[in-house]
Amino acid sequence: MTEQAPGKVNMDKLVSLCKRRGYIFPSSEIYGGLGACYDYGPLGVELKNNVKACWWKAVVQERDDMVGLDASILMHPQTWVASGHVGGFADSLVDCKECRKRWRADDVKDGKCPDCGGELTEPRMFNLMFKTFVGAVEDEAGTVYLRPETAQGIFVNFQNVLNSTRRKLPFGIAQIGKAFRNEITTGNFIFRTREFEQMEIEYFVKPGSDEELFQYWVGERFDWYVSLGIKKENLRLHQHSKDELAHYAKECYDIEYLFPIGWSEIEGIANRTDFDLRQHTSYSGKDLSYYDEESKEHIIPYVIEPSAGVDRSVLAFLADAYDEEHVNDELRVVLRLHPALAPIKVAILPLSRNEKLLPLSQEIYTDLRRYWMVQYDNAQSIGRRYRRQDEIGTPLCVTIDFDSLEDNAVTIRERDSMRQIRVPVKELKSTLDAKLNGEPFEVLPPGGKKWLGFED
Amino acid sequence: MTEQAPGKVNMDKLVSLCKRRGYIFPSSEIYGGLGACYDYGPLGVELKNNVKACWWKAVVQERDDMVGLDASILMHPQTWVASGHVGGFADSLVDCKECRKRWRADDVKDGKCPDCGGELTEPRMFNLMFKTFVGAVEDEAGTVYLRPETAQGIFVNFQNVLNSTRRKLPFGIAQIGKAFRNEITTGNFIFRTREFEQMEIEYFVKPGSDEELFQYWVGERFDWYVSLGIKKENLRLHQHSKDELAHYAKECYDIEYLFPIGWSEIEGIANRTDFDLRQHTSYSGKDLSYYDEESKEHIIPYVIEPSAGVDRSVLAFLADAYDEEHVNDELRVVLRLHPALAPIKVAILPLSRNEKLLPLSQEIYTDLRRYWMVQYDNAQSIGRRYRRQDEIGTPLCVTIDFDSLEDNAVTIRERDSMRQIRVPVKELKSTLDAKLNGEPFEVLPPGGKKWLGFED
Repeated sequence: MTEQAPGKVNMDKLVSLCKRRGYIFPSSEIYGGLGACYDYGPLGVELKNNVKACWWKAVVQERDDMVGLDASILMHPQTWVASGHVGGFADSLVDCKECRKRWRADDVKDGKCPDCGGELTEPRMFNLMFKTFVGAVEDEAGTVYLRPETAQGIFVNFQNVLNSTRRKLPFGIAQIGKAFRNEITTGNFIFRTREFEQMEIEYFVKPGSDEELFQYWVGERFDWYVSLGIKKENLRLHQHSKDELAHYAKECYDIEYLFPIGWSEIEGIANRTDFDLRQHTSYSGKDLSYYDEESKEHIIPYVIEPSAGVDRSVLAFLADAYDEEHVNDELRVVLRLHPALAPIKVAILPLSRNEKLLPLSQEIYTDLRRYWMVQYDNAQSIGRRYRRQDEIGTPLCVTIDFDSLEDNAVTIRERDSMRQIRVPVKELKSTLDAKLNGEPFEVLPPGGKKWLGFED
Repeated sequence: MTEQAPGKVNMDKLVSLCKRRGYIFPSSEIYGGLGACYDYGPLGVELKNNVKACWWKAVVQERDDMVGLDASILMHPQTWVASGHVGGFADSLVDCKECRKRWRADDVKDGKCPDCGGELTEPRMFNLMFKTFVGAVEDEAGTVYLRPETAQGIFVNFQNVLNSTRRKLPFGIAQIGKAFRNEITTGNFIFRTREFEQMEIEYFVKPGSDEELFQYWVGERFDWYVSLGIKKENLRLHQHSKDELAHYAKECYDIEYLFPIGWSEIEGIANRTDFDLRQHTSYSGKDLSYYDEESKEHIIPYVIEPSAGVDRSVLAFLADAYDEEHVNDELRVVLRLHPALAPIKVAILPLSRNEKLLPLSQEIYTDLRRYWMVQYDNAQSIGRRYRRQDEIGTPLCVTIDFDSLEDNAVTIRERDSMRQIRVPVKELKSTLDAKLNGEPFEVLPPGGKKWLGFED
């Protein structure tokens, strides 16, 4: 997990770019940071929001068999008894008797501390849920947990959603939200953090149709990453063997991405059977069945769960987008982010600070930011400004020059190819729209002048 | 706070609609709920996301002096020492010696339990921050807090944002996120909950310009609610007197909304001076100053903080939108939500289940859901379906009838006026777009037939 995957951007380089350009900062850095917590900066929050919005559009808005949900982080503690987390969500840990360092028992099978060679204690179980107390007294009765997964918020609301939406099987409930795990082994930047965000679907199906729909979702979710620009050769499926399967799962695939640290999971798709709904029925005493009008029977649906990590997805999109190339004998660093994910869609760049360019530049800026995240930059040379936008992944730059004041046209420059076209200002919005939605740069806008070639 | 504001929707009625139609459910309801926690259902999550997206668009995307941030919920504990929360974020509580019930000392000034008349203990201080433990041992060293406000995540990142974005004063950092307070007195639905979401701006200004910019932000934020449909007469400003001001604040206004429970705060705008940056400078030993190129001096900026509650805003938008009227001798319940906030923008309603209507209806549905949250409904009479959409606040319905198969035109019906117009299918998307963006229903689309009048 700590080696460097060949041909991939080095993790340190990515971490450095993220901090320097405002993608991701260590949390509470002025106090020395808090272990494995990160803050998303001005560009990072846009990227993360775009990842979440693209997921929501694909799995909720564009489907007729899915609804959304947003359950609270604090839930009734009985939820975690029913789900098995209170009893079983634990790591086996040992302490070094010499240096007091703590290790996962799995990682130190030979009984000596990897750091100092000291003797280790017997392993003891340690629950990974963060515990806190509701009310004024810190006692058992007031103990609640920070949810270690968003999934259970969906299961406990199954009947509420059924009653309010009159859905028929198969249908899914989708949710995005924070979850917390008191991990002992963290690290690799935002890959494994104690506070993280999930995008989870619980897709409820008739028992018997579960195997086919499981395969369907594996394909759907794999294709989603590809549709947002992840190179297919950097994705693979890993099928869980019987030994790896969680106790509730009939089948599970991980979608793995070739991170700088090597192949690792970005999403798991599990067939959870009827385990969760049966557990909650049994612990709550409430009827969580579904009445099937065809068979006139009450059934407990099976559940297919595609569960993705938001932060891991962000890391995968960043790592996959990172590229370096030599242009005019200089290194060009470019984030080839899909336009739907790029934090800034368009940069408005007056050729110089000359005040004659100001009114038109500002007019274009003010108009376009009604539609997209747009950045205005008039500092330094145009070449330096192109490179700055390349490095943060802005797909399109609009340059306003002195000719613009005569011909009322501007130049659009594409990040990936560095190609330029000249476009009348009145066609600018629709042309940007088309280009952001994938129209190739060979296609000229109505009224657009001939392709100008490469000008970088 | 518990009385009924005259002329406003009754809170029970709103709570009932929210549960029945999938806006808001009590959290972990199958286990009896968790005090003052709520889950957003399929419509609620869309409304809440729309509120957040409108805020983000107004304060980040459409401004050139603001950037976003998303800091983690778990922060270095020293943050809360510096901010004053460890020392001072506490309520004074008393217990009843008879019935053990706990009260805020403020609420029981006469020394007898309001419930049973029993004698009360001496008051003791109780910190409102939720505490948890990072790492394997539950001790002082591993104690962290769930953030009680999002603001501090901005202050500790002040230099990171400055360094990565090269901003000049005045500029702001905006953030949306969860915060947690272990409140003793909760209630009034989602008005006061232990887990809640904030939309906060920290706007950094030069000392001396703070009073003017404070007034500016009071106006901006008031107008934002009005721009999204809140009736002006249901909003008012409350200026904090010297007694009410927080110790760090030079000035503070609350924006109050006339909730069903009476006038209460939805947003506070405070002039926090340089208190926070100075405290963090002092506790972290890091330089959090800003270099002013004009005066060639390092200064500690003042901060204007408009801080809004997401959940309270959602409640205000719902309460303000709720309306009842008599139509054809029946009660029509209608949520007059602003189109930008409405969970479902357009409902596609084939006149009947006749399969001849299916292909065109499905074609329209599949096309439109690429742009908006759209619902397809073919159950029950068209009148019942209009009422269902009215009750959840859908601004526009599209009806496909048998004439549509001949003239390739459909009917658009507006929620608020119940007016109808007939529109060629090829003009449908652009017409819906215009109507959702405020074009009055008197304006006919190109190729649209004459206004059809009221048909409900």
